[in-house]
Amino acid sequence: MLYALCYINNRFLPFNEAKLHISDLGLQRGYGIFDYFLEMDGKVPFLEDYLDRFYRSGVLTGLDVPLEREMLKEKILWLLGQNGFRNSGIKLVLTGGYSEDLYTPPSDPNFMILNLPVTHPPGEFGEGVKLILLDYVRYMPEVKTTFYFPSIALFPRMKAAGAIEVLYHHSGLISETTRANIFLVKEGRLVTPSPGVLRGITRMHVLNVAKQLLPVEEREVRLEELWECDEVFITGTSKHLIPVVEIEGRQIGDGKPGEWTKVISGKFEDFYMQVISETPAGFSG
Amino acid sequence: MLYALCYINNRFLPFNEAKLHISDLGLQRGYGIFDYFLEMDGKVPFLEDYLDRFYRSGVLTGLDVPLEREMLKEKILWLLGQNGFRNSGIKLVLTGGYSEDLYTPPSDPNFMILNLPVTHPPGEFGEGVKLILLDYVRYMPEVKTTFYFPSIALFPRMKAAGAIEVLYHHSGLISETTRANIFLVKEGRLVTPSPGVLRGITRMHVLNVAKQLLPVEEREVRLEELWECDEVFITGTSKHLIPVVEIEGRQIGDGKPGEWTKVISGKFEDFYMQVISETPAGFSG
Repeated sequence: MLYALCYINNRFLPFNEAKLHISDLGLQRGYGIFDYFLEMDGKVPFLEDYLDRFYRSGVLTGLDVPLEREMLKEKILWLLGQNGFRNSGIKLVLTGGYSEDLYTPPSDPNFMILNLPVTHPPGEFGEGVKLILLDYVRYMPEVKTTFYFPSIALFPRMKAAGAIEVLYHHSGLISETTRANIFLVKEGRLVTPSPGVLRGITRMHVLNVAKQLLPVEEREVRLEELWECDEVFITGTSKHLIPVVEIEGRQIGDGKPGEWTKVISGKFEDFYMQVISETPAGFSG
Repeated sequence: MLYALCYINNRFLPFNEAKLHISDLGLQRGYGIFDYFLEMDGKVPFLEDYLDRFYRSGVLTGLDVPLEREMLKEKILWLLGQNGFRNSGIKLVLTGGYSEDLYTPPSDPNFMILNLPVTHPPGEFGEGVKLILLDYVRYMPEVKTTFYFPSIALFPRMKAAGAIEVLYHHSGLISETTRANIFLVKEGRLVTPSPGVLRGITRMHVLNVAKQLLPVEEREVRLEELWECDEVFITGTSKHLIPVVEIEGRQIGDGKPGEWTKVISGKFEDFYMQVISETPAGFSG
């Protein structure tokens, strides 16, 4: 069985023994936020970006991160050093805490740092993936809340379709997938939905890289544009950039990973490796 | 400290010691449903209605209740007998279970039955309460999911307004409050929103009682109707029927509990006491 150390409420303990009392409001009332990022050889690329977003999620939802930023970084890096996975994911989870009446938020939240190995590091481009559609609007889309109910309840339909993610749309507009942002290429222009989406860290850096290659539009994107465009790809922390070749049973473009997608992916991987090389190793430095 | 027995995954144990591993999908991904009902002197009025709804929530969301109905009833009644509170709440919570990757639902869910004392039994009519407004649509409104994030994040604004619940509205239509259904009385007609609301058990029985007293309409209700109506009240398991005298700082009707509200409340309490008297005591019978 996997051995990993984790951190809960000021205490380091083995992941397998990590429990919360059932009065936790994250469990009872879905009152929780999180963030997630990767370690590679002791380095955490874009750590400051992820921490920016996590603290911002807290401010927007009334959940106070109980650790100051420098202290939080210290705990994360110490944990990475102890576990020594070299390829792992770090998940920060902050919930409303233990509530006596299972409803009213107490003053003390529950906060945990989880660190588990990653078996498939990002950067593998592959032959393209499939998505399914769901009419759904995330509440506070700019916040990483723990509410993944709508897409997790669709696992059977996803499996049947051979899909890996659910693409949300509403009122004729698409927004994002379960765990990724979406991009379209049409006639040499890159388009991605905004506003109403999570500000993905990979999304942001892919946009920066792509801006040097082709015209980029952040705007409302209609569902129909999917059927008329040349290429679609999704971006995420665990995925980097993955081509999409089918959505809800309909072929995208010519059904193969697109040329622009390949070019942008290549440039992003170059950028990522450069960032890795410039990032000091947290726990050995 | 409170001593109460509870039930988790085929085991009875003290509530204070009841924990779940943090890989639970209810905690990590908000993948959970619940239901809640009251015990009074060992009796559980409308138990069959609540169980109908709970099993239906499971079917609609792909979460299998791991106990057959008769077995579940047995566990509930045994728990009530052991705790012997006489005035208590029973909460059934079913989550997606322990997930190795904190995302993919496993085959075994986590299921718990909580039983905690109630300090304010329902039926107290009072001077009327205040609500605040939130533009929000519940996902799968007919299902009792655990996602209360939007309203719990509003606790500070609720407190500042002296409000007890958040009333949801969207696209000009109202639906329900955090934990209650809403009714309006206008010129001797009773109106309540439908569809797009939780099928409250108290709502259902209040409708049945009210139908014998005045014309009743279940239909889409516009937000503006709140400002033009004579009376507003909310209904819920823990509240029965409570008059609403202010919403988002605006007075409802003449700012006092309405006459029809009083009449319907009185008839509902009569009906409730009759049901109690006809319900066999679960654990002593």
